[in-house]
Amino acid sequence: MKIQIGILGYGNLGRGVEMAVNQAEDMKLAAVFTRRNPKNLAIATADVPVLNIAEAPAWQNKIDVLILCGGSATDLPKQTPEYAGMFNVVDSFDTHAKIPAHYAAVDEAARQAGKIAIISVGWDPGLFSLARVYSSAVLPTGKDYTFWGKGVSQGHSDAVRRIPGVKNAKQYTVPVEESLAAVRRGENPELSTRQKHTRECFVVLEEGADPSQVEREIKSMPNYFADYDTTVHFIDEAEFNEKHSGLAHGGFVIRSGNTAEGHHHLVEFSLKLDSNPEFTGSVLTAYARAAYRLAEEGKKGCRTALDIAPAYLSPQNGDELRAHFL
Amino acid sequence: MKIQIGILGYGNLGRGVEMAVNQAEDMKLAAVFTRRNPKNLAIATADVPVLNIAEAPAWQNKIDVLILCGGSATDLPKQTPEYAGMFNVVDSFDTHAKIPAHYAAVDEAARQAGKIAIISVGWDPGLFSLARVYSSAVLPTGKDYTFWGKGVSQGHSDAVRRIPGVKNAKQYTVPVEESLAAVRRGENPELSTRQKHTRECFVVLEEGADPSQVEREIKSMPNYFADYDTTVHFIDEAEFNEKHSGLAHGGFVIRSGNTAEGHHHLVEFSLKLDSNPEFTGSVLTAYARAAYRLAEEGKKGCRTALDIAPAYLSPQNGDELRAHFL
Repeated sequence: MKIQIGILGYGNLGRGVEMAVNQAEDMKLAAVFTRRNPKNLAIATADVPVLNIAEAPAWQNKIDVLILCGGSATDLPKQTPEYAGMFNVVDSFDTHAKIPAHYAAVDEAARQAGKIAIISVGWDPGLFSLARVYSSAVLPTGKDYTFWGKGVSQGHSDAVRRIPGVKNAKQYTVPVEESLAAVRRGENPELSTRQKHTRECFVVLEEGADPSQVEREIKSMPNYFADYDTTVHFIDEAEFNEKHSGLAHGGFVIRSGNTAEGHHHLVEFSLKLDSNPEFTGSVLTAYARAAYRLAEEGKKGCRTALDIAPAYLSPQNGDELRAHFL
Repeated sequence: MKIQIGILGYGNLGRGVEMAVNQAEDMKLAAVFTRRNPKNLAIATADVPVLNIAEAPAWQNKIDVLILCGGSATDLPKQTPEYAGMFNVVDSFDTHAKIPAHYAAVDEAARQAGKIAIISVGWDPGLFSLARVYSSAVLPTGKDYTFWGKGVSQGHSDAVRRIPGVKNAKQYTVPVEESLAAVRRGENPELSTRQKHTRECFVVLEEGADPSQVEREIKSMPNYFADYDTTVHFIDEAEFNEKHSGLAHGGFVIRSGNTAEGHHHLVEFSLKLDSNPEFTGSVLTAYARAAYRLAEEGKKGCRTALDIAPAYLSPQNGDELRAHFL
């Protein structure tokens, strides 16, 4: 019997989860739930029901793990506690500062319902968090660095698109090569926000919009751009569609530390992803396997990637892992 | 009360563990056990007893975790099951092909004694195993690559030293840059042994030894050198001591895979270590913390790195980890 997976929310991330579930031999996509009219939503997999979100509660006995694919700003803070009261759930909640509060709310709901919830899995938080915890546990005397990119920041792209006169925009976060090199050389530099990343924007203007005005508005935007060296390129729609429609991303987590007699050690974890939502969907899917197994063991409550042993993510059993992966 | 650590075996690795334990605020080195005459062994830490290995059993109630620092060839296959019958233990058993048998022997001993044993931790097996399992669980369609080096292989250095006429020798394992680059480009190449690594030897000859004879013997040695492109440099003892006394090592674990629609993803974990035994000792020490906590929970039996959640390795608690590392 395969693990029965439900998907709640069918944007880029939901579609990425669908692909990953279809690649997993031990899983079956059971249903997709949407806030849209299901009749207007075509999914990639044949013979899988697409249902309105209101029908989800009726599927409690037919779904082993529900993967929540909404956004962190407004969807997940409400959805994850709500659905953890009915299903084993996995989410990719990624507002770092609000994780403790999200954890507490989800943990209470999941415990009361006797369900397992795994929150904040993806690559950051998620795989990058793992890299930070493992490497700082092994090298307690040292410094951690996280660089993102080169890749598309959806939040920054959205912020540029909200500026009057902007028809379309994409923002790339780019690590500063010289800073990355200094970290790799073991120099343990103190890096300001500006020294870690630059921001590069590709903007299509509405007809008649003033490029210098738009550029000023971008570069002076607090939090998003003001603390960075930002480059703005104005391009036409054809070039935008041809060159900037992807969702590539990636990054680096580096721990640079010393053992007692001054020997230096560098631990580096990096990702280079052609599709951020597809890779994030793949991580969610692996953790859905873990959620299923933990639930089978009778465990309940909220977990993060830090609380789950790696073997739970793999379709292979302990004997196979020890023989082939260790 | 700090975690009381014992070290059994005081070579390079035992000394690396000692340094790591002294860096850990929640641990205290309680005793070092040796097969040598303890009177002739000076350790780095003041006021810690150095005792003959025969006295270890009397310390069962004074040591929380005993870290076994012997070799994988003959020491650990015997020692780990034996001491798992008396202590919670951690070892760095690294003969990959024999891990399943070692696991079975240690698991039985630890279960009978009600103790926790964690085997095969270090960086390969250990952190590299984690990278392989996490990345293949997330990207099931893909290929794994492990490259070692540039670094000193103790086994290969020993093999060269056993050749008649060789006074001293050091062997470096070097990844083939072009193969590493092809993997990073996502080409998923099939790589032969020769295409993955080269071997570089620095040899000091005994007086009167024939260099061409020694070079032939090295290059034709089955398993160790015959399948590799090997370079042999003959140097004098002064140069050897000046340039080749270190134990640096490192390597790369790369997973190159695709999500369903052909998007490519690269997951890379790498280490660059000035001292292999000190870093390995640091990993053993982090897993000793995990062993202590698992034992406190009443768990027993054998574990590997794959069976242990990352949070167990960190001195910080769940709230702190969620707030600062996730």
